[in-house]
Amino acid sequence: MDTLTYKNFGVDIAEGNRFVQELKHVVKKTFNPLVLGGLGGFSGCFELPNGYKNPVLCSATDGVGSKLKMAIEHDMLDNIGIDLVAMCVNDLICDFAKPLFFLDYYATHKLDTNNALRVIKGIATACEQSGCALIGGETAEMPSIYSKGEFDLAGFAVGIAEKEDLQKRQSIQSGDIILALPSSGLHSNGFSLVRGIIESRNIGITQVMQNGKTLLQSMLEPTRIYVKEFLHFNNEIKGLAHITGGGLKENVVRILGDDVCAIIDESSIKIPSVFNIFLPYISKEEAFLVFNMGVGMVLIVPKEHVLNIISNSDAYVIGHIESGLREVIIR
Amino acid sequence: MDTLTYKNFGVDIAEGNRFVQELKHVVKKTFNPLVLGGLGGFSGCFELPNGYKNPVLCSATDGVGSKLKMAIEHDMLDNIGIDLVAMCVNDLICDFAKPLFFLDYYATHKLDTNNALRVIKGIATACEQSGCALIGGETAEMPSIYSKGEFDLAGFAVGIAEKEDLQKRQSIQSGDIILALPSSGLHSNGFSLVRGIIESRNIGITQVMQNGKTLLQSMLEPTRIYVKEFLHFNNEIKGLAHITGGGLKENVVRILGDDVCAIIDESSIKIPSVFNIFLPYISKEEAFLVFNMGVGMVLIVPKEHVLNIISNSDAYVIGHIESGLREVIIR
Repeated sequence: MDTLTYKNFGVDIAEGNRFVQELKHVVKKTFNPLVLGGLGGFSGCFELPNGYKNPVLCSATDGVGSKLKMAIEHDMLDNIGIDLVAMCVNDLICDFAKPLFFLDYYATHKLDTNNALRVIKGIATACEQSGCALIGGETAEMPSIYSKGEFDLAGFAVGIAEKEDLQKRQSIQSGDIILALPSSGLHSNGFSLVRGIIESRNIGITQVMQNGKTLLQSMLEPTRIYVKEFLHFNNEIKGLAHITGGGLKENVVRILGDDVCAIIDESSIKIPSVFNIFLPYISKEEAFLVFNMGVGMVLIVPKEHVLNIISNSDAYVIGHIESGLREVIIR
Repeated sequence: MDTLTYKNFGVDIAEGNRFVQELKHVVKKTFNPLVLGGLGGFSGCFELPNGYKNPVLCSATDGVGSKLKMAIEHDMLDNIGIDLVAMCVNDLICDFAKPLFFLDYYATHKLDTNNALRVIKGIATACEQSGCALIGGETAEMPSIYSKGEFDLAGFAVGIAEKEDLQKRQSIQSGDIILALPSSGLHSNGFSLVRGIIESRNIGITQVMQNGKTLLQSMLEPTRIYVKEFLHFNNEIKGLAHITGGGLKENVVRILGDDVCAIIDESSIKIPSVFNIFLPYISKEEAFLVFNMGVGMVLIVPKEHVLNIISNSDAYVIGHIESGLREVIIR
């Protein structure tokens, strides 16, 4: 009788091992002296940095949603790893945590070493940019779950915060100013809707936008990472909100106390041209719930620090805090 | 013109919010006083435990592979979350790390609140059993990547170790004893092969096994978690190896120094009956590379501690360490 091997069913341990070897080179660039051991251990080990009074670990996980599908369809895989890291580390800084390390989960029909390396190079680039080490990951071949050529990605980031910083947002009060840090475009939200509109309304994705890029390129622009701005202005900020699914309303409200409300002046928001393609097909209310509308990160700061921040970054004023009943009013 | 909404394309933010409400109840059972804040923050926050001289964070990520597909096909979703946690925390303890917290990534065609809760209840149960808090997660609807009824799971665990414990395995030397902690069956490895054999050889999964369970039930037996044994015998153990893909050979070798080899006596290994169904169809060599063959966790211990461990657990001797060239010999 002929014997069966694991390879017959789509899982090739030897190819997996070759992949890990190539990976090492990419990943090591993100290492720092706090990373212990190399790849190949059972877990990724990271020494705790010194200098924290009451260290708190903050942890976030995310995927890139249906943006991934678009990247796969058009073989534009080089930046999707940036989106993955951005979605996680931008959440960490909202809890005043400095990113420490990152792990990725990559599950596919059948490992294509070349494509996987393109994705993971993007992850490594974004980890470097965020100051965090890529200390682990899992690459899984699941031919029964994923169709040929398909894969999914999940990311996981851990950061460290000073415990007392977690209370900062409780000091948000009437008179504080709401700043926007611009998004690079759609970031990684709303792609099920975007894909639906493009398909049902027959929109040409090769059309050239105001920014000189095609619509496709504009849509797949990687999510901006706000770690540098956070580290630079940390001591001047009372609250940060990463604007993802749920938009300004549902994300800014998460950092408000029970006795304040956020008033946002819609006309102040600089909406990138990529959004204008989709706005004719949805209500404005829906657009503000699904998209970031050009605001990737919101900062809430006391008046006295506004000038310094807007002079030394691309942040700009979009509103202010008033006494109220924990809501976000866009008007 | 009719406007389109996100719901038209398979993503229902309101249903997602309802799900998060139901989830809170399940997740809170895993909380301990080190968990800061509740669900709904941007990240999960966990206060660092006291009492470590040189704390090291260890982190592992994994999925459950094609075992998930079998669980979905037969609507046996209640234990698959246990597998997910087990695969991660069993890796952490190999680096002498006590699990602290866990996050999950759940991506699906369309959120089925009932099924998702079944899965996440399993995750929470296993987190309780592992002494770790379920402090975050992401639930993603990706109708373009996943077919109807399909989903994938990834897990991320973080633990804490004493830095000097990471050196313990370097003291593994000739004369040390290799103990096996039994697996509960296939655990979460080799399911692409298993599914392939069942399909191509037309094996009946409703057949009743020696243990009184059906083959299907035996295959989906949740992965055993070894955290309690690790915490109990931590000071008596020089090395632990979680036996997953690659089997005894490729996993035990990971904890060996350059000058020792592991000699495992094949006849000593207690192979559970579920493996016997598949062994006729593959070579023995392949079987030992794909399956755990009944050994879920290997402990390497000095002779003087063997009696205590085997008397107070279900561990048993399967081999010993000799001088040699960093290899695992099964004979």
